[in-house]
Amino acid sequence: MLFLVRMDVRIPHDLPAEQVNEIKAREKAYSQDLQRDGRWKSIWRVVGEYANYSVFDVASNDELHQLLQGLPLFPYMQIAVTPLAQHPSAI
Amino acid sequence: MLFLVRMDVRIPHDLPAEQVNEIKAREKAYSQDLQRDGRWKSIWRVVGEYANYSVFDVASNDELHQLLQGLPLFPYMQIAVTPLAQHPSAI
Amino acid sequence: MLFLVRMDVRIPHDLPAEQVNEIKAREKAYSQDLQRDGRWKSIWRVVGEYANYSVFDVASNDELHQLLQGLPLFPYMQIAVTPLAQHPSAI
Amino acid sequence: MLFLVRMDVRIPHDLPAEQVNEIKAREKAYSQDLQRDGRWKSIWRVVGEYANYSVFDVASNDELHQLLQGLPLFPYMQIAVTPLAQHPSAI
Amino acid sequence: MLFLVRMDVRIPHDLPAEQVNEIKAREKAYSQDLQRDGRWKSIWRVVGEYANYSVFDVASNDELHQLLQGLPLFPYMQIAVTPLAQHPSAI
Amino acid sequence: MLFLVRMDVRIPHDLPAEQVNEIKAREKAYSQDLQRDGRWKSIWRVVGEYANYSVFDVASNDELHQLLQGLPLFPYMQIAVTPLAQHPSAI
Amino acid sequence: MLFLVRMDVRIPHDLPAEQVNEIKAREKAYSQDLQRDGRWKSIWRVVGEYANYSVFDVASNDELHQLLQGLPLFPYMQIAVTPLAQHPSAI
Amino acid sequence: MLFLVRMDVRIPHDLPAEQVNEIKAREKAYSQDLQRDGRWKSIWRVVGEYANYSVFDVASNDELHQLLQGLPLFPYMQIAVTPLAQHPSAI
Amino acid sequence: MLFLVRMDVRIPHDLPAEQVNEIKAREKAYSQDLQRDGRWKSIWRVVGEYANYSVFDVASNDELHQLLQGLPLFPYMQIAVTPLAQHPSAI
Amino acid sequence: MLFLVRMDVRIPHDLPAEQVNEIKAREKAYSQDLQRDGRWKSIWRVVGEYANYSVFDVASNDELHQLLQGLPLFPYMQIAVTPLAQHPSAI
Repeated sequence: MLFLVRMDVRIPHDLPAEQVNEIKAREKAYSQDLQRDGRWKSIWRVVGEYANYSVFDVASNDELHQLLQGLPLFPYMQIAVTPLAQHPSAI
Repeated sequence: MLFLVRMDVRIPHDLPAEQVNEIKAREKAYSQDLQRDGRWKSIWRVVGEYANYSVFDVASNDELHQLLQGLPLFPYMQIAVTPLAQHPSAI
Repeated sequence: MLFLVRMDVRIPHDLPAEQVNEIKAREKAYSQDLQRDGRWKSIWRVVGEYANYSVFDVASNDELHQLLQGLPLFPYMQIAVTPLAQHPSAI
Repeated sequence: MLFLVRMDVRIPHDLPAEQVNEIKAREKAYSQDLQRDGRWKSIWRVVGEYANYSVFDVASNDELHQLLQGLPLFPYMQIAVTPLAQHPSAI
Repeated sequence: MLFLVRMDVRIPHDLPAEQVNEIKAREKAYSQDLQRDGRWKSIWRVVGEYANYSVFDVASNDELHQLLQGLPLFPYMQIAVTPLAQHPSAI
Repeated sequence: MLFLVRMDVRIPHDLPAEQVNEIKAREKAYSQDLQRDGRWKSIWRVVGEYANYSVFDVASNDELHQLLQGLPLFPYMQIAVTPLAQHPSAI
Repeated sequence: MLFLVRMDVRIPHDLPAEQVNEIKAREKAYSQDLQRDGRWKSIWRVVGEYANYSVFDVASNDELHQLLQGLPLFPYMQIAVTPLAQHPSAI
Repeated sequence: MLFLVRMDVRIPHDLPAEQVNEIKAREKAYSQDLQRDGRWKSIWRVVGEYANYSVFDVASNDELHQLLQGLPLFPYMQIAVTPLAQHPSAI
Repeated sequence: MLFLVRMDVRIPHDLPAEQVNEIKAREKAYSQDLQRDGRWKSIWRVVGEYANYSVFDVASNDELHQLLQGLPLFPYMQIAVTPLAQHPSAI
Repeated sequence: MLFLVRMDVRIPHDLPAEQVNEIKAREKAYSQDLQRDGRWKSIWRVVGEYANYSVFDVASNDELHQLLQGLPLFPYMQIAVTPLAQHPSAI
């Protein structure tokens, strides 16, 4: 079951740099693990913004929320989720 | 799997009254069938508006889209879907 | 009398972690008390967001405001209240 | 129980003038009946707009929706309802 | 001359509690003085929000601004003013 | 007492041209009468839009609403009114 | 080069049904041709809406505009284009 | 003096095709005349939309409004004008 | 050449009071100098807000930006500029 | 390939002045290097705002994102990118 997810990152400018770097490193590993297991199907940078559009393939709303809530950057992100369905023109 | 759905109805004022009544009658029957089979769990009128908030319980995004697209009023509605997950404080 | 309530939580990132945890613990207890006495009928997590949609069943606007204002997270939440009425198609 | 209600009137310009006048006459009578029985406590024109702010005093959400849905201009209005509570500074 | 005024209070979370309490006490006294002299005709809490809708009856725009600007909470509020006129259906 | 008023004109494209011209001629005369008697102090075109910003000087909200409601283009305009007060830096 | 495109379809309700059907048939064929040649990489229905999110893979902005402008439903769609870039966490 | 102008075209779908074509032909000639005399410096299509961004170089606000108001598509466009100034980093 | 300018002031609450007062004193002097030389034609307080609407009469966009950028409160203001033109109904 | 880019700068007021100046100096040098090599074709100040509109000429979305992400002010800017195409009326 597919979902389009947009994540906008807003890190407070007074967070210490080493803490930010540590969070980003964990975020990258977390994301790549999910990409490898097939649930985080695609991730693209929005040009000019600290933001991404991603496609997730999960079995349920609860699974998706668990994945997103576990993101190391979750406390610093605004996330918008759009449920997707099969399009009748898709080949 | 639960979804909160808001439907705002906008029927063009120049649609013939009998056509509108026929669509509304089919809409009501369609809605009540889905309520009886448990997939349209709740439906509430938004006070002061020709709109409703509903909760759907379906197995997938595709099933939800099929149900919504089949609404007789679908061509005259603006619909917004919010996927819901289990809340950690829910008892 | 039913109300749909959306609560978006925005905790300032410089609030001490122990204070946040203490507030959250009180929030959970407060919410579960109201769920048990039947006034907080439903609570769902919005997928991907630190937010919930809830349905309250109260006797008056004043009662609802007292409940919401008493939430331990109230100072850190943006709350939107939608009054609901019986829908003519509800079975 | 008090509610602040804003009503914006949007009458399609191709509705026949006599039909519009007849609806407005019924609207006025309907409004004045409710003002006399105390449920439509106040009505003010928004300066420069075909709109009003009103205060309703009703026993329930359902009663308010019945009153609003019965407005002759209901099909041509956009209505926004805000539930009000007692303010702690009110004397 | 009537005005509908909405005030949304946003107190920074790092303002010391005693300072907040002192401001709120002055705010309450200030509001009640104006209610007693008839210029602050009504004040209602918006359910679920740290906000109010109020009706003011003043002789001029300048008088209204002086009253609002003098609110002890003025630096921490977002205020929206809507001028009201007599409604032709008002009895 | 001053008010800033923005008027956006939206004439339906299927209104007959002679009717539009007749309305515009009456609008111009109406506006110029009010400019001459000093109540419509200023009127400026918004560059690139069929819209104007105007400053009105009237004795009350009711007087302003009567003037605006009497505009021949009133049924085809969206109007926004901002009450103005004396600025402490004005010389 | 990837672009995320959202298309919202708004067909006027007074367009003859056969004309609508003919446009939709051409739209489907047009879309499937582009999917087969690899430039229209993905198309998903937005649940509950007459809308889709699509990913296009084209050589230039001009090529993308030509593809979109050629859509048989183009005159009846609102389209929003977001340019995408490689994400540093993508595997 | 430079201005950035965005024009969004919204032609009613029930305007006869020959009338639309005639307007568009005049629009193109009008635009190209102004491009040749240097006042309409640039015009770009917004990808995926019936809209353009343009840069105008004119001597005054009044001149710009005269140019825009004279556009054959003016009655069917929504126009937004942004005044531009010299940027300190421009070479 | 006229411009309507709206300025909304947002001073961070943790700026020292003496610094704020010194900025405001310079702002007032700066504004009054420009009012005296005729370029800042009008300034009005928006009722209930820490904001003003002003009319500027300048020779160019660049001149206007220089004036606005030089405001002592510039770093703490949100400014919106609307270019104005002669209105055909102005007398 | 052309893109219109709007950048709004929001520097936190508690960033030390010397740090801000150092960032701005690097920003200016960075911008002028890109203007000289032809990829940053135009940059204009938005009148009254700490913002600019710019036109970039790049070979790909990825190249544009690299340029924008490298801006010394990138962490303090909100950026919006609009892809542009050849306009059929352009000469």
